[in-house]
Amino acid sequence: MANKPSIPKGTRDFGSVEMAKRNYIFDTIKEVYALYGFQQIETPAMETLQTLMGKYGEEGDKLLFKVLNSGDFMNKLSDEELQEKNSLHVAAKLCEKGLRYDLTVPFARYVVMHRDELQLPFKRFQIQPVWRADRPQKGRYREFFQCDADIVGSDSLLNEVELMQMVDTVFTKLGINVQIKINNRKILTGIAEVIGEADKIIDITVAIDKLDKIGLENVNHELKSAGVSGEAIEKLQPIISLSGSNGDKLKVIQAVLETSETGLKGVEETRFILNTLELLGLKNDIQLDLTLARGLNYYTGAIFEVKALDVPMGSITGGGRYDNLTGIFGMPGLSGVGISFGADRIYDVLNTLNLYPKEAVNSTQVLFINFGEQETAYCLPILKQVRDAGIRAEIYPDSAKMKKQMNYANAKGIPFVVLAGENEMQTRQVTLKNMETGEQRQVSPAEAITCIQG
Amino acid sequence: MANKPSIPKGTRDFGSVEMAKRNYIFDTIKEVYALYGFQQIETPAMETLQTLMGKYGEEGDKLLFKVLNSGDFMNKLSDEELQEKNSLHVAAKLCEKGLRYDLTVPFARYVVMHRDELQLPFKRFQIQPVWRADRPQKGRYREFFQCDADIVGSDSLLNEVELMQMVDTVFTKLGINVQIKINNRKILTGIAEVIGEADKIIDITVAIDKLDKIGLENVNHELKSAGVSGEAIEKLQPIISLSGSNGDKLKVIQAVLETSETGLKGVEETRFILNTLELLGLKNDIQLDLTLARGLNYYTGAIFEVKALDVPMGSITGGGRYDNLTGIFGMPGLSGVGISFGADRIYDVLNTLNLYPKEAVNSTQVLFINFGEQETAYCLPILKQVRDAGIRAEIYPDSAKMKKQMNYANAKGIPFVVLAGENEMQTRQVTLKNMETGEQRQVSPAEAITCIQG
Repeated sequence: MANKPSIPKGTRDFGSVEMAKRNYIFDTIKEVYALYGFQQIETPAMETLQTLMGKYGEEGDKLLFKVLNSGDFMNKLSDEELQEKNSLHVAAKLCEKGLRYDLTVPFARYVVMHRDELQLPFKRFQIQPVWRADRPQKGRYREFFQCDADIVGSDSLLNEVELMQMVDTVFTKLGINVQIKINNRKILTGIAEVIGEADKIIDITVAIDKLDKIGLENVNHELKSAGVSGEAIEKLQPIISLSGSNGDKLKVIQAVLETSETGLKGVEETRFILNTLELLGLKNDIQLDLTLARGLNYYTGAIFEVKALDVPMGSITGGGRYDNLTGIFGMPGLSGVGISFGADRIYDVLNTLNLYPKEAVNSTQVLFINFGEQETAYCLPILKQVRDAGIRAEIYPDSAKMKKQMNYANAKGIPFVVLAGENEMQTRQVTLKNMETGEQRQVSPAEAITCIQG
Repeated sequence: MANKPSIPKGTRDFGSVEMAKRNYIFDTIKEVYALYGFQQIETPAMETLQTLMGKYGEEGDKLLFKVLNSGDFMNKLSDEELQEKNSLHVAAKLCEKGLRYDLTVPFARYVVMHRDELQLPFKRFQIQPVWRADRPQKGRYREFFQCDADIVGSDSLLNEVELMQMVDTVFTKLGINVQIKINNRKILTGIAEVIGEADKIIDITVAIDKLDKIGLENVNHELKSAGVSGEAIEKLQPIISLSGSNGDKLKVIQAVLETSETGLKGVEETRFILNTLELLGLKNDIQLDLTLARGLNYYTGAIFEVKALDVPMGSITGGGRYDNLTGIFGMPGLSGVGISFGADRIYDVLNTLNLYPKEAVNSTQVLFINFGEQETAYCLPILKQVRDAGIRAEIYPDSAKMKKQMNYANAKGIPFVVLAGENEMQTRQVTLKNMETGEQRQVSPAEAITCIQG
């Protein structure tokens, strides 16, 4: 059994420095969620497969981690099933539970199960790991955390406004410069309606996105290759060349969409959100971006995405409005809007830019050196006093060589060390050493506390 | 698919009030762990079955949740294996991963895998869920949280002392009166050695434990029924009748164990721990209790247990010293000592005694009533000002009926409501209503902030 141990591929251990950094991110997000009246819930890691299956498409079903039933599962299989060797079919017999794949489906299940206790609109946040049997690769894990906030049971656009304020506040607190991109599914639907090419909306957004790189002529050529009619391309021209302020863009889009009720609704929604945010003043830039087309088979109104400006990195936050969250569990008519912070990518951005505040990563503030039994008996009550003052403190448990103890302090990044030998014991003092400057002074325990507290 | 959704048996959803209470407990424990220099780590929910199997006994192996391999697992089974229908054997073929059963084995695996990065002694804490396919019953769940702190790589008894200080501090902070019980495996071994009945140590502790209830004569009778020899029972008499202070007890035990080197070592260790704690002054009572015999096939030195005094409830915290944590993964000679707080039981105790501080459970501090578009436009900048002051605040997103909005505030336990109509807009003020007293006053936004902050 003395095999070299390992962990499942795509999973991670988090050491103490990583944990401190991750907690700093999670705590910042949590604080902002709470500031806006969102309340935390948690759901179990395992859900029934009945809850999970069929919610993430065929590919998603395959990526679910399924948990083997306890007991004598083999004898519940018929000889026929054994012969057939159809793994997908057998899996359904062997397993009744699976690991949470995201936080949205468990949230929908939660809302339906607890509908009688919930006060609508329900503003919840949830920060928990999810699991996907994806092919692991750089930046993609089989266990990773999602940090979602959603409001269900309210159609008000104030919710969209507040979510953008929250995004702005979180990244301002973290010190990451971002650009927020906003779009609206109804505008995209309107465009498709107006040009009579409803099924080409993705091709169109992809082509528009290339304008800066390849120029108008090539964009039009791409649209043609994608099978968009000449008439439709003509109508699209003002939208492809869209530029200027958000207000300018909205004017152009409104003119193009004048015959589409849905499209105009999307313009009106977007205008309200952007105008209200302008009134409130965001610290970061927000841009209307028609090429933003995430979650098109899911979102029904506003769509958001956030990108870091100073680091090349995909989207670090996203979200949008969806209809009918809970319909799949037999509770129709509940609309919602939500955002999800990508904690792993935010972690990478903060690491790259080295933006962690010193306090976030520091742990123990002072180490008491252990010189032996008598000195320890002298130190322990002082150590207690130090901790009672709220200072994170340790005593090296063994009276090891001085060098070893100092190495321990250095390795843990402990900024102060307390030494107390015969001399200090006689004067009821301690020697406090600043590990950064190397400076050391003999002081009273009370002075040491003041000094450490800085 | 519109089936009534459910969650797997033995698992739980945590709503916002439960989460606030649980976070209060976890945060209190975390704060004390950090105060004593313990650093947080996290390990993946899934471990390889190679890491997990054989570590919890035969029964434990059965209680592991196993995760089905992805892909076409059925075609990896031979016809013979299919015929045999041996579920336990097949499970080993179908699954390579399982869910974490406790935090100790993953911690041992972590220490071995990261041995080169770790600074010994390594003080880590870990607060994560674990999963066991146990029969669910009242107070026993299939998913529950463990809150462990361990020091590995130090034999010093100062670690035991500090763990007891931590226990004392946590329960003092939580306001739970507890009794800490301490014993030592070496004392129990010594007793068994001295009376020549090494295999009867459990029977002996069980019988001693009944002294108060059934009296000395019946205890001796029970010992005889358990097969303990008359001579051994004779030798046990001073230990069965053990009473008085911890010091008195240690004197008696020392006399009985004078021929057992191991036993005397246990006495000496216990005396050091208790004397040092007396020097430091615990808020709660600590008692030497020879009937404390938890984890006998695991602990090798001190054993601890904590019971709440004001609520009938099993042990709410436990721990002890163990040798050779990592030997099973090929890294021998690493001793450790740890404690584990029973979060679910502590939660029940706090609920029973209603000991949650008000701040711990409160969420949103003020709700802005929504009277329509114009009033909202007036309120939003004030709402921003309130949040910038660190106050958790919401605006009701829809301009619903006043009664509905007030019900929302009441249901969420929001202590203040802000109302702003034509009158307030003209005077640049708001009406602040205290939901507890019913009192309401028209004030400036700045005054409202001061008022809400209390």
